[in-house]
Amino acid sequence: VKPLAQQTVAVVGLGLMGGSLAAALRGHCEAVVGVARRRETLDEALRREMIDRGTLDLGEALQDAGVVVLATPVRTVLSLVRQAGRFLGEGSLLMDLGSTKREIVRAMASLPSGIQPLGGHPMCGKERSGLAAADPALYRGARFVLTPLARTSAEAIVLGQELAHAAGALPLVMDAAAHDRKVAITSHVPYVLSAALLSAAVEASGREPGLWPLAAGGFRDMTRLAGSDPRMVLDIMLTNRDNVLAGLDLLQARLSEFGALLRRGDEGGLAERISGARQRFLEVRR
Amino acid sequence: VKPLAQQTVAVVGLGLMGGSLAAALRGHCEAVVGVARRRETLDEALRREMIDRGTLDLGEALQDAGVVVLATPVRTVLSLVRQAGRFLGEGSLLMDLGSTKREIVRAMASLPSGIQPLGGHPMCGKERSGLAAADPALYRGARFVLTPLARTSAEAIVLGQELAHAAGALPLVMDAAAHDRKVAITSHVPYVLSAALLSAAVEASGREPGLWPLAAGGFRDMTRLAGSDPRMVLDIMLTNRDNVLAGLDLLQARLSEFGALLRRGDEGGLAERISGARQRFLEVRR
Repeated sequence: VKPLAQQTVAVVGLGLMGGSLAAALRGHCEAVVGVARRRETLDEALRREMIDRGTLDLGEALQDAGVVVLATPVRTVLSLVRQAGRFLGEGSLLMDLGSTKREIVRAMASLPSGIQPLGGHPMCGKERSGLAAADPALYRGARFVLTPLARTSAEAIVLGQELAHAAGALPLVMDAAAHDRKVAITSHVPYVLSAALLSAAVEASGREPGLWPLAAGGFRDMTRLAGSDPRMVLDIMLTNRDNVLAGLDLLQARLSEFGALLRRGDEGGLAERISGARQRFLEVRR
Repeated sequence: VKPLAQQTVAVVGLGLMGGSLAAALRGHCEAVVGVARRRETLDEALRREMIDRGTLDLGEALQDAGVVVLATPVRTVLSLVRQAGRFLGEGSLLMDLGSTKREIVRAMASLPSGIQPLGGHPMCGKERSGLAAADPALYRGARFVLTPLARTSAEAIVLGQELAHAAGALPLVMDAAAHDRKVAITSHVPYVLSAALLSAAVEASGREPGLWPLAAGGFRDMTRLAGSDPRMVLDIMLTNRDNVLAGLDLLQARLSEFGALLRRGDEGGLAERISGARQRFLEVRR
């Protein structure tokens, strides 16, 4: 396996995540090739010097690249993985940046045996999506989860780590199922909460004119995630259903508990909940 | 009523909110007098030039000041209002910075008739509390809600607005009950959500080692509020119980709806919820 510096890397999908990765990898590999569906996207990426060259032809890009990174919402990744087998060369590395990993590594397991598959999920993002929001510094300091399959070679994992490092991220190898369980509570349930809060506030604002001037920094923090790319979020929910539902149950139980304590004015119980969550977090996070 | 520039302003409680206000008002009035329970707090405030002078004697400070601002958690404000009547001079303005307003204006209604009472709630804050976190720029650009009583004179409201402006904030006069209904959904329910999420994640981390490296920016945003001063939060919950419970019900209904759609894999329904919340927010906020 050639080191990253001698590889041609194809990034499929030049949105926030793909565009940022492409820009971060330029100069760390032989060439970065951007693949998009629209000519204007390639033009913008070329103008901003985020890619060395661009193409609308997926097959052509996959045939020429030793490393391919699928940077689209999860269900598009699934469909691209199914198409990629026909084009990818012997020994090439196929990665993705999808937010859930179980279904993706399952699809990757069906690829021809000469291809090295490696799931990936960089733990960074923004509430804005699209190439316009892309930034070569986006990956800097972020964890970049890598989920190998049983068939993935050690060299392929090393190359994937090299790619993560080149983008400024910290690679972290783990099992796809463990990844999906963890991010359900750290990322997917928080999204549902954020959207539910925004939706409840919109409903309340109908009865309560002049609500928005009283929405300050705390409200903005809590509703930022609700501005995520809807297509990305829908794919996450549908491909991590069991874990998100379990996390929502956990959360609703906590809310119900708190509501019950508040309803009966249980000051001691409320005080314990209010300071307890933060304290236990500071203890266990160590 | 003398303008702010000719007033001695006493700030009772030199924590994040009181300390920041005192520092912001210095130079805009005749003198800022800090009142604290500990000598070290006064020393620190004097050293950082946030107050002109300091005292541990509440009665003395209240007798000398034309404007008094109670800057403590809500239930301490309630107790201070009950004590203040004995000390405050004829025509003086008594304000507070408490996060809920109904119980405070109700307590203020019992003050001797020569005193001008005016509830206040600046919509700013930080996840850190205490004088160490105080910052004269904290109020800059923030809404500063003022909740007058029926007996509050127009001149007293004008003086209160002048004080808000002097701190760099934007005064907004409204009814105490309307304030409490609005902030329940923009501030108090978000706090409960934030603490519930943190607590659910702590619970999940017990079964799921290595959870915290996967908690990135979205998780930090969503759990920042859970770091608020516990005493302040407890007082908020207990003095805005009905509105917080109503807001929690609204929110739980949204979460249950989302969970039901996800459980049965209703893609159309989920897509509508995911993009709908944000879209309606952008529409109604105008």
